[in-house]
Amino acid sequence: MAGNSIGDLFRLTTFGESHGPAIGGIVDGCPPGLVLDLEAIQHDLDRRKPGTSRYTTQRREDDVVKILSGVFEGVTTGCSIGLLIENTDQRSQDYSAIKDVFRPGHADYTYWHKHGIRDYRGGGRSSARETAVRVAAGAIAKQYLKQRFGVEVRAYLAQLGPVTAEKLDWDQVEKNDFFCPDVDKLEALDAFMRDLKKAGDSVGARINVVASNVPVGWGEPVFDRLDADIAHAMMSINAVKAVEIGDGFAVVEQQGSTHRDALTPTGFTANHAGGILGGISSGQDIRVSIALKPTSSISIPGASINTSGEPVEMITKGRHDPCVGIRAVPIAEAMLAIVLMDHFLRHQAQNHQVSVTTPDIARIGRGG
Amino acid sequence: MAGNSIGDLFRLTTFGESHGPAIGGIVDGCPPGLVLDLEAIQHDLDRRKPGTSRYTTQRREDDVVKILSGVFEGVTTGCSIGLLIENTDQRSQDYSAIKDVFRPGHADYTYWHKHGIRDYRGGGRSSARETAVRVAAGAIAKQYLKQRFGVEVRAYLAQLGPVTAEKLDWDQVEKNDFFCPDVDKLEALDAFMRDLKKAGDSVGARINVVASNVPVGWGEPVFDRLDADIAHAMMSINAVKAVEIGDGFAVVEQQGSTHRDALTPTGFTANHAGGILGGISSGQDIRVSIALKPTSSISIPGASINTSGEPVEMITKGRHDPCVGIRAVPIAEAMLAIVLMDHFLRHQAQNHQVSVTTPDIARIGRGG
Amino acid sequence: MAGNSIGDLFRLTTFGESHGPAIGGIVDGCPPGLVLDLEAIQHDLDRRKPGTSRYTTQRREDDVVKILSGVFEGVTTGCSIGLLIENTDQRSQDYSAIKDVFRPGHADYTYWHKHGIRDYRGGGRSSARETAVRVAAGAIAKQYLKQRFGVEVRAYLAQLGPVTAEKLDWDQVEKNDFFCPDVDKLEALDAFMRDLKKAGDSVGARINVVASNVPVGWGEPVFDRLDADIAHAMMSINAVKAVEIGDGFAVVEQQGSTHRDALTPTGFTANHAGGILGGISSGQDIRVSIALKPTSSISIPGASINTSGEPVEMITKGRHDPCVGIRAVPIAEAMLAIVLMDHFLRHQAQNHQVSVTTPDIARIGRGG
Amino acid sequence: MAGNSIGDLFRLTTFGESHGPAIGGIVDGCPPGLVLDLEAIQHDLDRRKPGTSRYTTQRREDDVVKILSGVFEGVTTGCSIGLLIENTDQRSQDYSAIKDVFRPGHADYTYWHKHGIRDYRGGGRSSARETAVRVAAGAIAKQYLKQRFGVEVRAYLAQLGPVTAEKLDWDQVEKNDFFCPDVDKLEALDAFMRDLKKAGDSVGARINVVASNVPVGWGEPVFDRLDADIAHAMMSINAVKAVEIGDGFAVVEQQGSTHRDALTPTGFTANHAGGILGGISSGQDIRVSIALKPTSSISIPGASINTSGEPVEMITKGRHDPCVGIRAVPIAEAMLAIVLMDHFLRHQAQNHQVSVTTPDIARIGRGG
Repeated sequence: MAGNSIGDLFRLTTFGESHGPAIGGIVDGCPPGLVLDLEAIQHDLDRRKPGTSRYTTQRREDDVVKILSGVFEGVTTGCSIGLLIENTDQRSQDYSAIKDVFRPGHADYTYWHKHGIRDYRGGGRSSARETAVRVAAGAIAKQYLKQRFGVEVRAYLAQLGPVTAEKLDWDQVEKNDFFCPDVDKLEALDAFMRDLKKAGDSVGARINVVASNVPVGWGEPVFDRLDADIAHAMMSINAVKAVEIGDGFAVVEQQGSTHRDALTPTGFTANHAGGILGGISSGQDIRVSIALKPTSSISIPGASINTSGEPVEMITKGRHDPCVGIRAVPIAEAMLAIVLMDHFLRHQAQNHQVSVTTPDIARIGRGG
Repeated sequence: MAGNSIGDLFRLTTFGESHGPAIGGIVDGCPPGLVLDLEAIQHDLDRRKPGTSRYTTQRREDDVVKILSGVFEGVTTGCSIGLLIENTDQRSQDYSAIKDVFRPGHADYTYWHKHGIRDYRGGGRSSARETAVRVAAGAIAKQYLKQRFGVEVRAYLAQLGPVTAEKLDWDQVEKNDFFCPDVDKLEALDAFMRDLKKAGDSVGARINVVASNVPVGWGEPVFDRLDADIAHAMMSINAVKAVEIGDGFAVVEQQGSTHRDALTPTGFTANHAGGILGGISSGQDIRVSIALKPTSSISIPGASINTSGEPVEMITKGRHDPCVGIRAVPIAEAMLAIVLMDHFLRHQAQNHQVSVTTPDIARIGRGG
Repeated sequence: MAGNSIGDLFRLTTFGESHGPAIGGIVDGCPPGLVLDLEAIQHDLDRRKPGTSRYTTQRREDDVVKILSGVFEGVTTGCSIGLLIENTDQRSQDYSAIKDVFRPGHADYTYWHKHGIRDYRGGGRSSARETAVRVAAGAIAKQYLKQRFGVEVRAYLAQLGPVTAEKLDWDQVEKNDFFCPDVDKLEALDAFMRDLKKAGDSVGARINVVASNVPVGWGEPVFDRLDADIAHAMMSINAVKAVEIGDGFAVVEQQGSTHRDALTPTGFTANHAGGILGGISSGQDIRVSIALKPTSSISIPGASINTSGEPVEMITKGRHDPCVGIRAVPIAEAMLAIVLMDHFLRHQAQNHQVSVTTPDIARIGRGG
Repeated sequence: MAGNSIGDLFRLTTFGESHGPAIGGIVDGCPPGLVLDLEAIQHDLDRRKPGTSRYTTQRREDDVVKILSGVFEGVTTGCSIGLLIENTDQRSQDYSAIKDVFRPGHADYTYWHKHGIRDYRGGGRSSARETAVRVAAGAIAKQYLKQRFGVEVRAYLAQLGPVTAEKLDWDQVEKNDFFCPDVDKLEALDAFMRDLKKAGDSVGARINVVASNVPVGWGEPVFDRLDADIAHAMMSINAVKAVEIGDGFAVVEQQGSTHRDALTPTGFTANHAGGILGGISSGQDIRVSIALKPTSSISIPGASINTSGEPVEMITKGRHDPCVGIRAVPIAEAMLAIVLMDHFLRHQAQNHQVSVTTPDIARIGRGG
């Protein structure tokens, strides 16, 4: 229990269920003196929010975040930041049918066993609605990292079912509803999703996340490695089933002579490592890839049981994303930004001024 | 900093470098009353220890673990358990050549930037030697889980370079030096490794880990999900670059109608989820798969720089594993056991249904 | 940083400044299944809230707490509980005069040095207003402890300036504005406070807190002792400068033959220990005593400096308590209840003797 | 459980029982680059160690600490520091008589209820022997604080039974076996202790701890205040029953006009606060006072019960301190140093370079 927090020094704690009056959270540990761009926070929330395209759930939420504390005259004070997002379009009546049954592939069954009680309306706490708060907190982290280090944290849809992006054009990402960096694949995506919706089914996706300009030296040996904390943060996103850093599973067939990134006076010559060596950032781009499962809320009937253990047939009604992976793009960015911000603070904590004469090579080593 | 611990309620903290006098750790939170089988702990250490086969480093360590506290007359007392393993075969002279250079693909470069100082002997703290302590702690967790719940935590080599195990015969796993569950692939593995050694190169591997008989309900919403903590623990193992739960990256191309595991009165009909729904154990087998990169310590020259930023050519001498993945089998088991043990305790903490039956003597003592 | 949380397994995180739009918090780790009495929570808030008597600040707040999550149909679900209390009577104009000066005895000087920025309105984050959220969270803990163990957590004013309560009549405590258990001292208290107000000064107080029916065995060796965590929680209350457990400072002159509480088959014969031995609850009443300093916000001029380091003379205007100690009674109860609840959960986590009786349905779900 | 750690960023975790083979610990988070003075560490251990004077237990331990990791060529590396102290003079046979009985005033009763098992030899984990590791870790913190900030952490015996030190002469403290700063009281102390020993009884003590030159700004609102963490650390020392910061309980009778320390351009004019305002260091001396109870191990018979609940009469044999408070002097210093070091790191973590232009006034404000 007490599992609703992430991060040690930059810590987000969240609350809220899909169909309660509001969701929200507390960001604890944001350094003072950051001039907050509230519109940029709202912009990230808008990127994630439901109802914006026909490919995502038709639930419509304004998702307006209120900042209740920790910011004075537009500047962070170093005190905890209270975040509140009201739920405005919850329709609880949609869910009464699932009160006593477990939707297959959902957390209904496990929450019920864990707690002996569950808020069955729209998944309650297990709903992806909770991730809106993460996006708001991540937007604060992104601003800090950008202003202080020029760090860019960006994500895109790398694959959706059988359709794989082959070109990486960052400018494209924000121009289409799929966050797809390959303009040539938009038609195929559109067609695939149309068919999927007709079939009442859903599909998985792969999201890639990249952080550029991360300084060398973030990450703590030996358990709180940067990559370990990234894996934790990514796997904490609803529906994520896999995480790769750098070349990921491809390393299984690689040989050492290929995998190791050569160091030269002008920087690394490659980036198989994905920007992390020994759990510590190397100055190369941090490359992360995650897989999101297809949502289990589909209109195709599925076998399940009820709370008495009797067999039932389920059709999930309500408003659902045929591909939850799409909206995970801003969420994945948020989680990576939160982890980086936390590790920046942890790294800064042990900065030993007497000896830390970061040598010239540090500047050289940022390539990759 | 302060990153040398893992787990909240069952917590392991470790210390020690590759070439210091000893490595060790503290297990804090092991419940009292566990009759410890010391031989079983040593057996897991022996499975991991170097020098046991020609496929692993020729460094020879006895890896005898001493239990210094927390166990009284063979039974855990609930107090912290001190673990100590002396280093007996360190040869520091092997490493003086790398004092001022960064081995490519290693943590030398990042540790040096992080701390402004590094113990360069054999990787110092970044050496996989540290994982011996994890294996000892994991062995304690395995015993508890086995005795109380019948949980089995087991791992095997699923793939090494181009050679993939196709059969899963658990009895085979402990019978060969590769922890390979497919007897038909031993010859191919042997041939591949022989060639690799001759070439002075190394290779990656995939390890699968399975936990059976895990009760329903372990895992904490929303950030401390069981799968998130497993991902963290696995990625904290040296050389791991990817983690999958259940079907992992295969879900990208799956549809919801396929992926969701049907529930019937007699149990789940499949296990695409890998035993975790909404971050909480479902009672299905927990299935985890990880990828380990090829070690960067190879005898093929590689380009690098020294601490002055000048180019150098590196050949890593010393004694190294051509495939560090092989020895990761007991380490991966240990990490999964530690996470499960931690989450069992966290789950038990909030159990409100079982009434506290303090023994009779408790009632007597209430005066005052 | 990230210091806005207390507790490990029953954890409260708070946000909010004196003059922001709202204060609030998140209770993470409340076990599921608790039928919450919302009126009892509000009752504790009313006991703490300002404006209720002429002895406390004339700021008037409704202090109505909204529960935004974690409770479904009146019962806790095991998910995080969001708490929100709107600020309705903040008058920021009162405080503009102190924008650039440091009130002596206040946190103005230290916050400004710590963060380089401060929300100067009414103390901002350092205001005792934040403690309202603690009272709400503590009320939840109190209900759980009461329902499950019959634990009573109660506090009273033991001394205010020169006036000391000599009788402990629990029934009296709620009947007067001083939370004084000695009806014979009410007149003296009233007279003293009237003179004090006239003089524009303030005074300190001693609050005693008692928890009865606490089971034996709560508290974790060696650093997270129950008494250590109580001391931490009490000292985290604004203005507290001292904490005693049991006989407290009187032990300096005691001899072992006097201090040690004899054990008999029918219980302890005394309670010098204050209910804690070796950091673990003994089943005796837990007795805690704390000292609160006189508020520094008084109308008697005091020497200070401004942010430019120049001398200034300060008179604190605004609405302030002449004795902040009085309102600390419900706050101290709340903090003790939070610590006890946290330690109950920590203790329960390691309970290895009670077997896990998962319900029947659990067995059904194990397939796959 | 998992309560054997203290500190967040500078964290000490300990293990070991009074009569096991060794005690030890891990310091996690010591910044790299500290040139360690090993003799100074040993010196603090020698100050604490038993057998040095006739006023403390006659158990004789060398208490030689071995540093097993985290230090390379005499300099800290930023990696975890393993500490080991072997037990050499344990005599377990002394304790077999108390196997089934609970010594009154000791942790026997509570440990037994908590864990259902206890290592009864010499108190096992509840023995003050564990504090030797704290002293070693505290000595590291003291060196860092001294070298970097000139912080001095010192303690002395302020009162023992009826004998109170009236003069504070720091030079005296290390010159007598009582750590007494008042040379005129040595005779009275000696006489009192001689009589006490003859009577077979024990006595309490008050220890004062002072930290000078602590920079302004350490401490985290609102729960992790510097004073709250100091209270926690002090109360975690065996036998401590009370903690005061600054004027402590005397504030109950103080008025605001007296208590608040005036600020002038040249510093504070007094130090009632004890160096902490709003939970954050003010630059004034940090003043802490603690009370230690008389040990319950005395040769005067006392009533108790055995594990079957039957009445027994206890005489504690073995070798014990008639006043455990004396040896608490170096322990109290160690705990304060650990807390300060932790808070320095936490403070440094959030250092926001854009805005942290520590103004001139900071230098002025260091008065005491």
